[in-house]
Amino acid sequence: MIEHGGNIYRVAKILNKDLSCILDFSANINPLGFPQGLREYLSSCIDAIIHYPDSEYNELRNAIAGYIGARAENILVGNGAIDIISLCTQTVEADSVLIPIPTFSEYARIARINGLKVEYFHTGEEFILNVEDIVKEIKQNRYGMLILCNPNNPTGRLIDVNSLRCLLDEALKLSVFVMIDEAFIEFIEDYPESSVVRFINFYPNLCVVRCFTKFFGLPGLRLGYGVASMDFINKMKERALPWSVNVLADLGGRYVLKDQVFMEKTREVVSLERTFLMRKLSNLKWIFLYPSQANFVLGKSNTDVSILEKHLLEHGILIRNCGNFDGLDKHYIRLAVRDHRSNLKLIEALKSLQ
Amino acid sequence: MIEHGGNIYRVAKILNKDLSCILDFSANINPLGFPQGLREYLSSCIDAIIHYPDSEYNELRNAIAGYIGARAENILVGNGAIDIISLCTQTVEADSVLIPIPTFSEYARIARINGLKVEYFHTGEEFILNVEDIVKEIKQNRYGMLILCNPNNPTGRLIDVNSLRCLLDEALKLSVFVMIDEAFIEFIEDYPESSVVRFINFYPNLCVVRCFTKFFGLPGLRLGYGVASMDFINKMKERALPWSVNVLADLGGRYVLKDQVFMEKTREVVSLERTFLMRKLSNLKWIFLYPSQANFVLGKSNTDVSILEKHLLEHGILIRNCGNFDGLDKHYIRLAVRDHRSNLKLIEALKSLQ
Repeated sequence: MIEHGGNIYRVAKILNKDLSCILDFSANINPLGFPQGLREYLSSCIDAIIHYPDSEYNELRNAIAGYIGARAENILVGNGAIDIISLCTQTVEADSVLIPIPTFSEYARIARINGLKVEYFHTGEEFILNVEDIVKEIKQNRYGMLILCNPNNPTGRLIDVNSLRCLLDEALKLSVFVMIDEAFIEFIEDYPESSVVRFINFYPNLCVVRCFTKFFGLPGLRLGYGVASMDFINKMKERALPWSVNVLADLGGRYVLKDQVFMEKTREVVSLERTFLMRKLSNLKWIFLYPSQANFVLGKSNTDVSILEKHLLEHGILIRNCGNFDGLDKHYIRLAVRDHRSNLKLIEALKSLQ
Repeated sequence: MIEHGGNIYRVAKILNKDLSCILDFSANINPLGFPQGLREYLSSCIDAIIHYPDSEYNELRNAIAGYIGARAENILVGNGAIDIISLCTQTVEADSVLIPIPTFSEYARIARINGLKVEYFHTGEEFILNVEDIVKEIKQNRYGMLILCNPNNPTGRLIDVNSLRCLLDEALKLSVFVMIDEAFIEFIEDYPESSVVRFINFYPNLCVVRCFTKFFGLPGLRLGYGVASMDFINKMKERALPWSVNVLADLGGRYVLKDQVFMEKTREVVSLERTFLMRKLSNLKWIFLYPSQANFVLGKSNTDVSILEKHLLEHGILIRNCGNFDGLDKHYIRLAVRDHRSNLKLIEALKSLQ
């Protein structure tokens, strides 16, 4: 099992502290939490657990379709994005996959489990993904599949939508299937412009992965979805397990999609707080922060970050040590952009290290 | 996608009725529903969805371990029993699987998806599984895997635990891996005597699948688990997706395992009501009910049951047409054992057909 961010249970146990005492900067969740009203709504829905979920998830898929501007037949819901990532790698007819790194480590793990040979593409010191380089690589070494994360976790780098279209055109010509994980795309200021969801009917070789985990602040509810051509969706459905989304995720997902105000406010707060965090931390000589367009930032320290990690834990602050990301090492950390008060505490704690 | 019982959403839409107006005899859920107190408890836990679940599910596995008398290291939790069934068929090193039928149709579907060749073993007109016949079959045709459902869905037949031990001994000698789905075992009157869970450390070739869906009345929450040797559990874990159980299932599962009174009461009610249902329906000349030890009964009608199905739907009663079970045909139905009042309504509706 790979160690991920957000493992507050282990940390709470080690520190012998209550979960609520930990400031978690290791999980990239919406700083506003989940939409107001959801707590009360779900509380009133508990009785629904006595029934199986709708095996077709018709209402949920309709709600998502309306939200992203697609059709329900282009959508498959799953037990978190990870379920869709797994189904996608199982369904694509490919022997090998190219994965630009550093990125979310489950892509490689799941691809290998499903019998694909994994090749990494190093994005260089600045972690900027050059689409021309990728095209050159897939032209040279006929990979059957390419996995991208946009904006990328943990670097926060965004590939612009025009470059992605060029890449998709080339991939289509070369019969390369492209999976794009847009887990963080809704945090981007110009969303939905930045998303490739609207192109799914032009590219039979494209599957977009989305989730409710990050943007809607619902990691515990487990809800993700794939968007692709009807043909590819149907192929994934053939392999999918029945009732993969629990009824509270089904109901909760439909509820939060109505809250337009929450979505606008989130983009506003994340943009403001990311700018604030970056500015305040730019004074620190021992750490370099990479420009990010997402709700988290990658930092490079001039020393081993495990000491930093330990020190912050003493302040009840949990960060993501990126040492176990392929392509990174013990000098890298990822910090979530949180609410102003929490960010201030992080800044203070980091400053006290100077 | 296979059509299963419990699809009340589709039916409610067709009838243009509210879910609560449908008497669902098609899903084999505890007639008592879920334990009292769970509604209130889960209502107070909604805030937990802001965090990822504990990736190790330590507390949940400890609670299950205490409940079944095993160790946490022998347990893997999953997104319903179906998740464990899938992981088990992926993990077992086998090319072919023997499945006695009629039984739950997902075993064959999932085994095929995971590359296994499926062979059916017909249990004959009475649907009684003779262990000696199975042993003869696995001796003759070296299957790598055997899947049993005990008590069996949809027949309600139970294989006694001594016969199962003989079968497991033979299977071990022949290197046949045995998966036993005990989704309904807790409804059996002499539970836990009837379960093979206590033998897991004697049989490295055994994986027992359990769920909270049926006995604890929680189909919408999605929680199942596998019990096996530590070695096999670790192998399944290597393939498992992270965070497969949502936090409310995690918390709810731990909560219901404390309710011993609910468990005893369930076995009492199911036994009484099954006897009542069987006695009342034995007067009907046009249907034969097979003896069952579970919370449902299989019936064989002398006519096509789709007419019966339609007629009952007009009374707001949903039953399981078993026409799509391999080994059965259009003459078979499955009826869940429900609460006394609902059972009376079913009996009246069936009698009105004479």
